[in-house]
Formats: sequence, C-alpha cells, structure tokens
Amino acid sequence: MNPPLARLCTALGYCFQTPEWLEEALTHRSASARNNERLEFLGDALLNLIMAEYLFQHYPKASEGELSRLRASLVKGETLAELARSLKLGDWLRLGQGELKSGGYRRESILSDALEAIIGAVYLDSDFGACRDWVLHLYQDGLMRLSSASELKDPKTRLQEYLQADQRPLPIYNVLEIRGEPHAQSFTVECVVAKLRTTAIGSSRRKAEQESARLMLEQLA
Amino acid sequence: MNPPLARLCTALGYCFQTPEWLEEALTHRSASARNNERLEFLGDALLNLIMAEYLFQHYPKASEGELSRLRASLVKGETLAELARSLKLGDWLRLGQGELKSGGYRRESILSDALEAIIGAVYLDSDFGACRDWVLHLYQDGLMRLSSASELKDPKTRLQEYLQADQRPLPIYNVLEIRGEPHAQSFTVECVVAKLRTTAIGSSRRKAEQESARLMLEQLA
Repeated sequence: MNPPLARLCTALGYCFQTPEWLEEALTHRSASARNNERLEFLGDALLNLIMAEYLFQHYPKASEGELSRLRASLVKGETLAELARSLKLGDWLRLGQGELKSGGYRRESILSDALEAIIGAVYLDSDFGACRDWVLHLYQDGLMRLSSASELKDPKTRLQEYLQADQRPLPIYNVLEIRGEPHAQSFTVECVVAKLRTTAIGSSRRKAEQESARLMLEQLA
Repeated sequence: MNPPLARLCTALGYCFQTPEWLEEALTHRSASARNNERLEFLGDALLNLIMAEYLFQHYPKASEGELSRLRASLVKGETLAELARSLKLGDWLRLGQGELKSGGYRRESILSDALEAIIGAVYLDSDFGACRDWVLHLYQDGLMRLSSASELKDPKTRLQEYLQADQRPLPIYNVLEIRGEPHAQSFTVECVVAKLRTTAIGSSRRKAEQESARLMLEQLA
C-alpha cells in the first residue's frame, strides 16, 4: 500500500489486506470508469443491516416504525458526511477535473457515498462480523447520543418525566368506555393533569392511554 | 417444537434451535402485540444485503443502477408473496379474527411480510452466513431466471443478438462529432442498420454508442 493510504487506514482504524478495494472506494465516477458506485450499493445495504440489527437488539420494546425512524437518522447522508469529514475523507478522494475545480471533495453526497463505499470495501476485505464491528466503532458517538435521546421513550414515560421535572403531580388515566366484541374492543381513555384533560380511543387500554398522554404532551408543550 | 411447526421447518429447509423466533415470525399484528413487525424490519434489511452481495459478485460489469433494478425485482412484495405461497406459508400464519374472516392469509402483503420476518428469525437463530445460504437456496429458481434474462445485457449486445437471430448484417457505429474540452467532451454517434439511423450524444464514445443502439432497438421493436 502506498504510504498516504496507509495513513488513511490508521485514521479509519481498519487495515486493508487488499488496498485496491479502498482505492476503488475513494474513486468518484468523475475520475474513472472503475469507480465507487458499485461499492456504494453494497455498503449502503451493509449499513442498513448493521443499524437494523443494532437497533433491534438494543431497543427491544421499540416498534418497527420507531426502529425505521431511528435508522433513518443514522444512515442519512448528513450523518454519513459528518463522519466522513471527521475522517478527513475529502483529502483522499480521487475526483475528475470538473469536480476538483468545483470543490466536489466538500460536497455532502460525494463524501457520504465514499464512506458507504468504504463500508462495502471493508466487508469485501474481511467478513460480515469484522465489518459490523468496524461500523459500530465508527458510529459509537452517534449511537451513544441515540441511547440518551428521549425520542424512543413512549408518551406516558415522557409525560411522567416532564411533570416530575417540574415537581408537578402525576397524570391520572381513566377508562371512560369499552365497546365492541371481546376480540375487537375499543377503549376510550382520558388523561388528566390538573385542569387539563385529553381523550383518546385505542384497540387496547394501553394504546389509548399512550395516545392520550401524547395529546397531553402536545397541550403542555 | 410442536409437530406442525416441525413440518413447516421441513418445508422451509431450516430447522430452528429456538422455535419461538419462528412463532413470532408467523404472528401477524392482528393476533398479538408480540408480532412479526420487528422481525420483518430485520429480515427486510437482511434480504436487501444478501441480494446486493449476490448481484455484486455475479454481475461484475453491471452498473449500480442495474444492480438496484435487479435487486428491486427480487425483493418486491410480489416475488416474496410467490415464494411464501410455494411454501404454503398462509397455512401457518397466526392472524386475528378480523383478518381470518377477510382471508388475510391469502393477502400478498401479509405473506411477504411474514417471509421477511422468517428471514430475520433464521438470522437470529443462526448467523449471517447460514442465513445467506438459506435465502439464496430459497431464491435459487428466481436467481436462475435472472441470470438467463437478457435485461442485464447492454443495448449494443442486445441489438447485435437481435440482428444475428434474423441473420441480418451487424450495425455500424459512426462518430459524427466530438465537442468540448478534453476533460468534458461530448460525443455524437450514429448507429446504422440498413436504411435505419439513430443518433445519440454521450460523455464518452461508448455511452453514445450504447444509447444509439438502445434507440435502434426501439425502432426495430
């Protein structure tokens, strides 16, 4: 491997057996027909799975919708470009003349595509387990921020924490009505906080309570 | 494992160590709060990666766009539902009363979601390598059809084969014009087949030829 690329490997925290993969991952389509677009296709799928599995394992109570939303925030171009900048990836890209002149090495999409391509390159150079470990290490700060974020907590928990922070009394939930056959019931629940009241209907008591808490948070916000 | 589920494992060609994963994968959200939606999220990401890698390895000349198109045809709901039907998955689904009455076990989205969930379940029950082998085995017919399909061949190859099949003379490509600076040239190329002519512009001679061949195929079709 040429010495500059070896420096990049140090920054990445991954040493390539076959540096050609890394070189291909750094090559924008403006520079060569043999460029990083195919590796980006592979890396995108890897990143999606690695994050899906991480979230699945670490958020056992999150719904499919919550998992999707969290993953979207982790794999979006902006997040990837930020990571690429922290690795100074722009310094290593191979760009065509046109892109060089127009400052393509700073462009978000070019940076995020190259990082996805490197994920694909790491996989081809090693295996799924090693690639996953490397990606999770790369993302460790982002994943830490995620786990401390409140967005995953359910509305009842958020409402309780919101009120406790102000040392206010906790909400009261009352079931106002239960309708329908036993296998298809609907529950009407109210959430009471001092003089405020919100009402919601759900297919279970729990769901109706969560929805009434969510509406209460909106009223309080 | 209860005897009926053991029969399903035979049909699937995969024997679960932890049958609870399979049970969860077969449970529609209409039947239980502990249902297959989270497993489907994981299985969808697995399927996308397994197909991305397969196509990347088996179609070394396909562009990223072609790889994406091929994968979309493999992972779409229709393809998954067809596979699910061939496994008689509908017989094993756990559905709520409402879905049972309305024939949910036949519905395409319910079948394809359950199959994706089973892919997630196989992964959690084994590892990436075993899950990949199982999915590729499940897809073997679809992948065979893919490799014999002409859609991956480039337009020049398709045009040549089309003409040869009719024992007609091969097309002639002429460069009509080259414009622009060396790093940003555009090529105008014509494709001639007997008295027919098509013209196309591209950033390389090869691209312009391919596009003129594609237009010729449209004229001949």
